[in-house]
Amino acid sequence: MSALRPTLDFLLYDWLHAERLDERARFADHSRETFDAVLDTCERIAREKYAPFNRVVDTQEPHFDGEKVILPQATHEAHQAYGESGMLSASQDYEEGGMQLPYTVEAAAGLFFATASVSINSSLLTKGNANLLMVHGTEPQKAVFARNEFAGRFSGTMALSEPQAGSSLSDIATRATPDGTDFESDPLGPRYRLKGNKMWISAGEHELSENIIHLVLAKIPGPDGKLVAGVKGISLFIVPKKLVDTEGQLTGERNDVALAGLNHKLGWRGTTNTLLNFGEGKYPVRGASGGGLDGRGAGAIGYLVGKPGEGLRCMFHMMNEARIGIGLAATALGLAGYYASLDYAKNRPQGRPVGLRPTSRQDTGNDASVVGKDPGQPQVRIIEHADVKRMLLAQKSYCEGALALLLYCARLVDEQHTGTPEAVEEARLLLEVLTPLAKSWPSEFCLEANSLAIQVHGGYGYTRDFPVEQYWRDNRLNMIHEGTHGIQAADLLGRKVVMEGGKGLLLLAQRINATIERAIQQPALAEHANALGQALQKVGAATKAAWATGQATDALANAVPYMQAFGHLVIAWTWLDVLLAVPAASNSPADEGRRRAARYFFHYELPKIGAWLRVVETRDPTCAGMPEEAF
Amino acid sequence: MSALRPTLDFLLYDWLHAERLDERARFADHSRETFDAVLDTCERIAREKYAPFNRVVDTQEPHFDGEKVILPQATHEAHQAYGESGMLSASQDYEEGGMQLPYTVEAAAGLFFATASVSINSSLLTKGNANLLMVHGTEPQKAVFARNEFAGRFSGTMALSEPQAGSSLSDIATRATPDGTDFESDPLGPRYRLKGNKMWISAGEHELSENIIHLVLAKIPGPDGKLVAGVKGISLFIVPKKLVDTEGQLTGERNDVALAGLNHKLGWRGTTNTLLNFGEGKYPVRGASGGGLDGRGAGAIGYLVGKPGEGLRCMFHMMNEARIGIGLAATALGLAGYYASLDYAKNRPQGRPVGLRPTSRQDTGNDASVVGKDPGQPQVRIIEHADVKRMLLAQKSYCEGALALLLYCARLVDEQHTGTPEAVEEARLLLEVLTPLAKSWPSEFCLEANSLAIQVHGGYGYTRDFPVEQYWRDNRLNMIHEGTHGIQAADLLGRKVVMEGGKGLLLLAQRINATIERAIQQPALAEHANALGQALQKVGAATKAAWATGQATDALANAVPYMQAFGHLVIAWTWLDVLLAVPAASNSPADEGRRRAARYFFHYELPKIGAWLRVVETRDPTCAGMPEEAF
Repeated sequence: MSALRPTLDFLLYDWLHAERLDERARFADHSRETFDAVLDTCERIAREKYAPFNRVVDTQEPHFDGEKVILPQATHEAHQAYGESGMLSASQDYEEGGMQLPYTVEAAAGLFFATASVSINSSLLTKGNANLLMVHGTEPQKAVFARNEFAGRFSGTMALSEPQAGSSLSDIATRATPDGTDFESDPLGPRYRLKGNKMWISAGEHELSENIIHLVLAKIPGPDGKLVAGVKGISLFIVPKKLVDTEGQLTGERNDVALAGLNHKLGWRGTTNTLLNFGEGKYPVRGASGGGLDGRGAGAIGYLVGKPGEGLRCMFHMMNEARIGIGLAATALGLAGYYASLDYAKNRPQGRPVGLRPTSRQDTGNDASVVGKDPGQPQVRIIEHADVKRMLLAQKSYCEGALALLLYCARLVDEQHTGTPEAVEEARLLLEVLTPLAKSWPSEFCLEANSLAIQVHGGYGYTRDFPVEQYWRDNRLNMIHEGTHGIQAADLLGRKVVMEGGKGLLLLAQRINATIERAIQQPALAEHANALGQALQKVGAATKAAWATGQATDALANAVPYMQAFGHLVIAWTWLDVLLAVPAASNSPADEGRRRAARYFFHYELPKIGAWLRVVETRDPTCAGMPEEAF
Repeated sequence: MSALRPTLDFLLYDWLHAERLDERARFADHSRETFDAVLDTCERIAREKYAPFNRVVDTQEPHFDGEKVILPQATHEAHQAYGESGMLSASQDYEEGGMQLPYTVEAAAGLFFATASVSINSSLLTKGNANLLMVHGTEPQKAVFARNEFAGRFSGTMALSEPQAGSSLSDIATRATPDGTDFESDPLGPRYRLKGNKMWISAGEHELSENIIHLVLAKIPGPDGKLVAGVKGISLFIVPKKLVDTEGQLTGERNDVALAGLNHKLGWRGTTNTLLNFGEGKYPVRGASGGGLDGRGAGAIGYLVGKPGEGLRCMFHMMNEARIGIGLAATALGLAGYYASLDYAKNRPQGRPVGLRPTSRQDTGNDASVVGKDPGQPQVRIIEHADVKRMLLAQKSYCEGALALLLYCARLVDEQHTGTPEAVEEARLLLEVLTPLAKSWPSEFCLEANSLAIQVHGGYGYTRDFPVEQYWRDNRLNMIHEGTHGIQAADLLGRKVVMEGGKGLLLLAQRINATIERAIQQPALAEHANALGQALQKVGAATKAAWATGQATDALANAVPYMQAFGHLVIAWTWLDVLLAVPAASNSPADEGRRRAARYFFHYELPKIGAWLRVVETRDPTCAGMPEEAF
């Protein structure tokens, strides 16, 4: 059994009571047994098909041989094993071939893959793509594209960014024009021709599946031929790499989607990342699903999804889950580093514990001579050194805290899908506020955990003979993609805590207070409960102070420190809530570990919010007012 | 001119008054003009021979072809250009062919190389090796080894660590036995035969120079044939890769030093890092400088430096400068990332500034839709975004603060070499306390700066098309080598602040108070001065509280948070002292930049010490008391 499983079991069942989801009609056929069976299967596939090849996909980076993108054989096998597991359609209805699995369990099961090899398989994109089509697509779009994605025949991408626009989607310039006068009558959806360049497209080109289904954001020109400025002009299109007929069979014709380049990345190298050219004429398309030469416009064939101008709304329908997915990946990498460094620390002998008092000797500045050690004694394993314990406990505290928050968010997604109307509304509000934190906090602090995992290994951690340097490189992506740290912070402070009159923030505060009220009745938790209450009060006051002038420029100048403090508040709350699930009388090592990890967070981490909030409260203009020429 | 130069000029001359070093007899022939000439030369060589090849040495990692270690041609050329510059012997006496250059200027000049390509040239090791021999070697050892290193014919290493011992030098097991009955009469020093394995030896094998001079720590067995436990048993030996005669000419015979493996590293790839076997019999040595078959013991020939049992003392004589060198490298990488991201931010258009008030719209969670932006306006350069300014100012504040501290320490080294007896003693005490900080603080916070440089670049920063990901990888080494972070912290709290009755700490406090007293008289600096005074008081109180029980186990359990807080105190002090050199009436952009960077440090960073010191003051046992089975 993996090191992860007992922690996952505790959080899923002892804390979140995921087994009670079977009380919901959608999940009525489920039980802890069926959930465990899913976890067992994923754990096994990850162990057999993912973990052994994590370094392989790092060293055998994707490359283009002039015709095809070449990936290691292991990537093909991992892709296939995942597809065959049924996890692609796990959350779908039974009649769609799915297993109506709760998202909570799907998210938990995904951790086995991500801890084993975060980048070897990009099926989350395929799943997100197909899920989106199931919500916004027409019946033929679902049948031809989504179902073949769930079946593993096709894979999917999300093509949003462009080289000149990056995160600023309002500035995309990919142009979609109606394809002939009959463009609206195509059975696969209103047919357009797309021209433009898309950057940072993960899994944008490979030979893992029969076809690649790109979901592309583009703008339809107005009557004046100009693109509409801003996000309102954006529409969403299905652009398959190879054209298909209404039965989902390949027509044999290639669509005009061309690989313009592979990005060579710091990490996450198991997944190709591409610059794609749409409609540049490399693969001129004669016809579409109807076939035949027709003299219509040039460009890549794309089928409109939803209504014109609603592309971003469709795309961002899936945003909460996508961002929770990033948080899960960051957390999985953090946990992988924690387990690796824990194992190393338990086995590596080096040095001796410190003695009892300082010396005033003039000695050498090297470890061997630090206060009061007896070199006549044998070396101890490094886990016996207090500073190594500190680095391990910090990792545990960060990563298990992040894991708990993410599973809590996943549980809210299930609530949103299956709860009472009131519960659905509450879950929606909580997810609005928590999602930027669920994405950003693990990206920052589980990366820090990976750095500590390197440090525990000493020089060995800096070599490619141990896995931790790769985890650290892989994890560095997560503060960047799916909305950068700065974007998450602006979303949190600029929108989420003020939206709908602050309803989301208020509801979260109620949940936190409910935890405090329960915890304060346990003598062992009262100190934490009081500290959490004070932290909540501070974050609330800072939120008000940030917006005291009503000026976004004032408030958002320190949005990232605000988000860091808010994230620490939420992780502290999560830890305290987790401790409420630990029997007070238990003295099992696992429970002691949870208490210590929580205590670490309350003693070493939570006090940091003071410094972060200080600049928020004062709307400190030091950075925002820095003249460019003074840098 | 490089972006670095004006900052360096300000710190060297306006702040530290390095030009006044010409008042010292040793530096009497120098002046600002000669210093500037050295800086000009180094800046030019770094620009021409280092900077263009920094990525080359990263991608063309050292490899062993079965006979030789292959390095890129650029590495050979950089090595040669550095040797020809005269910088190898710059600090040596005129009669040694040196230029009696102050260390302050040498350290400053070294920054040009390290910002251009930190790992392409490992001459600092050669220099440290030769410097050590100039202090502890015999005349023939100086003539044969050190002078040929200064001349660039030979290069040098420091061979301390072993696979089973790592940082714990008391556990090294390399054995040195007298080589024949006449072992003491060898003109190159008492001759021994060494057997053992040395790990993490940088520049341990290459073809850059005629010969490689290893300085090796080993133990001489006692009369019972056993090695002496602990550091007292350690002696220091010169072990050349190829044997030489008393004229320094190669005898044509190889010494028994064999490459056992290259370490494949996360970064810093321009420098080979090796596992070396000494005396394993791969290159059996018949004779030594005397030559001839003689039936003496097997093993690699080594010549004792200094007295038996004093090896570590000799080696660590150079430790302050070596650790300042690591701090300089970390700082240089931080600065390189700062300049790269500043350049990117000034040129990359993306997004628009935030508007005036929050919206309650339900929108998309993407940057483009954050509060009150007008998509009809053209995109702005990202340096106009407050959060990008924050990330740039943080980098400037970290890296220029670290730079100032390191130049201050370098100036103390010059004081130690040329000051009055009282000044020498003060410099020694200050360096004892400051060196662990000068090494650790930049290693941690200039690494964080590199992460921010990636973040400023967004997705581009995660690719190898931009230099910042390499800086981040290169910099990750610095918390590990030359004594890990944990070792520096134990050195600081376990030894340096308590040694000699706390004299070093007291003296540092006096210096800090002197700065406060000057600053408090300037209205613009009074707030910072007060904050610094409070921080000093807090660190002092925490130091006492940490040791209140007299138990090292209590005090050192939180040595790293202590060091982080102490480092922030010292950088805040450094910034305030730097501001004293800024004319109050100046409104130049550079001076405004210094004020802002200092203010950033006082407002955003210094308040963090509260959280770090809290666990120190309470001797928090959360980590140290964690039972192993609870992880």
